Amino acid sequence: MTKIECVVIFAPNQNHIPYQFMQNLHQFQVAFESYLKNNEFKNSPKELYEPSNYILSLGGKRLRPAILLAGHYLFDDEVQKSLPAAFAVELFHNFSLMHDDIMDAAPLRRGQLTVHKKFGLNSGILSGDAMLVLAYESLLQTESPQIVHLMKRFNQMALQVCEGQQMDMNFEKSQNVSIEEYLRMIELKTAVLVAAALEIGALIGGARKEDAEALYEFGRNLGIAFQLQDDILDAFGDPKKFGKKTGGDIAQNKKTYLYLKALEIAPTAMADKLKALYTSQSMGEADKISAVLEIFEQLNIKKLTAEKKEEFWKYSIQALVSANTLSGRKAMLEKFAADLMNRDF
Amino acid sequence: MTKIECVVIFAPNQNHIPYQFMQNLHQFQVAFESYLKNNEFKNSPKELYEPSNYILSLGGKRLRPAILLAGHYLFDDEVQKSLPAAFAVELFHNFSLMHDDIMDAAPLRRGQLTVHKKFGLNSGILSGDAMLVLAYESLLQTESPQIVHLMKRFNQMALQVCEGQQMDMNFEKSQNVSIEEYLRMIELKTAVLVAAALEIGALIGGARKEDAEALYEFGRNLGIAFQLQDDILDAFGDPKKFGKKTGGDIAQNKKTYLYLKALEIAPTAMADKLKALYTSQSMGEADKISAVLEIFEQLNIKKLTAEKKEEFWKYSIQALVSANTLSGRKAMLEKFAADLMNRDF
Repeated sequence: MTKIECVVIFAPNQNHIPYQFMQNLHQFQVAFESYLKNNEFKNSPKELYEPSNYILSLGGKRLRPAILLAGHYLFDDEVQKSLPAAFAVELFHNFSLMHDDIMDAAPLRRGQLTVHKKFGLNSGILSGDAMLVLAYESLLQTESPQIVHLMKRFNQMALQVCEGQQMDMNFEKSQNVSIEEYLRMIELKTAVLVAAALEIGALIGGARKEDAEALYEFGRNLGIAFQLQDDILDAFGDPKKFGKKTGGDIAQNKKTYLYLKALEIAPTAMADKLKALYTSQSMGEADKISAVLEIFEQLNIKKLTAEKKEEFWKYSIQALVSANTLSGRKAMLEKFAADLMNRDF
Repeated sequence: MTKIECVVIFAPNQNHIPYQFMQNLHQFQVAFESYLKNNEFKNSPKELYEPSNYILSLGGKRLRPAILLAGHYLFDDEVQKSLPAAFAVELFHNFSLMHDDIMDAAPLRRGQLTVHKKFGLNSGILSGDAMLVLAYESLLQTESPQIVHLMKRFNQMALQVCEGQQMDMNFEKSQNVSIEEYLRMIELKTAVLVAAALEIGALIGGARKEDAEALYEFGRNLGIAFQLQDDILDAFGDPKKFGKKTGGDIAQNKKTYLYLKALEIAPTAMADKLKALYTSQSMGEADKISAVLEIFEQLNIKKLTAEKKEEFWKYSIQALVSANTLSGRKAMLEKFAADLMNRDF
């Protein structure tokens, strides 16, 4: 296996991410893409493995495996030792996408048919299960004196992601979601995977437990901030840059931070109107989106959400600063965090 | 935790298994049931864990965890050390039942509603995922110098069970299933879990690798023989003893060993008739079952299947004999294997 720092190929940017944003993590993404290509599943029966190869081939930013490799790099040069763990994290992420797409009855993923639409419900379930098992298999290839601890951390993350997905499903039916519960849900559903990726990379890189935990905290807070930014962009982003039409969350009656904050601070009549918009069966989608956005604007929700996001971003940087790493290498992650916060895509 | 040999409570037989059959493994079943009761999931959100508690509460013979404990007991007295691994195996088994029931669109499991019928499709998928993760969590609680090896063995088994399920699904659509493929399918779908349970128990009990592997071989062959006996009972068993009506496999056009052997040895006209019966849309279920059974009887299929079963049973006993264990303790497993072979329920 070649050392990652030798990788010089610059793959064309297929993920609509501006180059200047990615250049820091880019070497890790390239190394990971190359590992991915060499590890296509060829086992039998092919019907079990084809959906896994398919969903992995749909692309994505590979942020989670790249950030795991970056976590390793903070403590050690031999980042290639973390490639199987990076693969584990990407397999886990795609397993959860495959099953979430069934639960959300989503027809498309990254502009292509979802697995259950292309291969059928049963394949979506069973190949997802196999991907989860394959994630453990890949993680178990890691050579590290910390392997049992790694497995436990990975496992806790996996259970928390399931818990986050269940909370998300519960929120669809509930009329009493608190902001605190929403923040806990996005922490579990989104942030702990980023956090665990960083911690696991750090541990394989030989980090002390407390430094690896600091990276976990960095990732956990960054992941929450990332999701809050996603909530903002979904409502207020430029569809050309964001890659999907704005107002999707509103159209689906998603109880995002924006919605919950609006309910919290709106005068009674306005809150009632917002609730009515979210439960309306008759209103056209475009009218509904613009009526909700108008309420958000009147209440200055974009700014309030950005402030909350900023709060988590600051916690994340504090955690990063507290970790003892190889000199200078933290700057890459700090810039990455700042770029994520200021992204408009 | 009390030592298992202190357990004296004799729980009422809820699983319709005659006492004389179970008395050897019974102490392990009792110990496991007690562990299960103390380990009910109380985590939050409750909607995620309730389906797991539900499916575990439906009962079942707990053969897999009991046999894991028996595998430990062959090498060491402190069987309670294997309880978390036994729980892992039972969780894995129930995860696979939960997802298989969705894939088979089964309304009932052990006479009660299946999880997806009771809690909905999404709960069936997500709680199944969580159960798989919980299985790893329980296995990771095991204190053993062999823990990484254990995890790898468990993981290989988990992937093979997925492969077996995929083969089973493929067979439904295929007109060209060979006997060899069928035997491989039941090995993967059923036997490797029994095999891995024995091997893992043995390893935790301190067995040498080659002795643990001998137990794996014992379980693998025994599992195949068990499934062949199940095929026989499904067609020829006494419904009162077997607990379900006979002919279920035929009604569902299952390509069992009986069917495939019949196709192999039948004269062309009879083979064509059998194929026609399996693809008939118009024929009543009772008529179809009795027509197929008549062909099976003309071809002496019951005896031929029993001979094949006997073959695997002999391999299993050879493997058991070859393992170096604490003196005398193998007799329990040998009796268990013999009883399984002669069961009529």
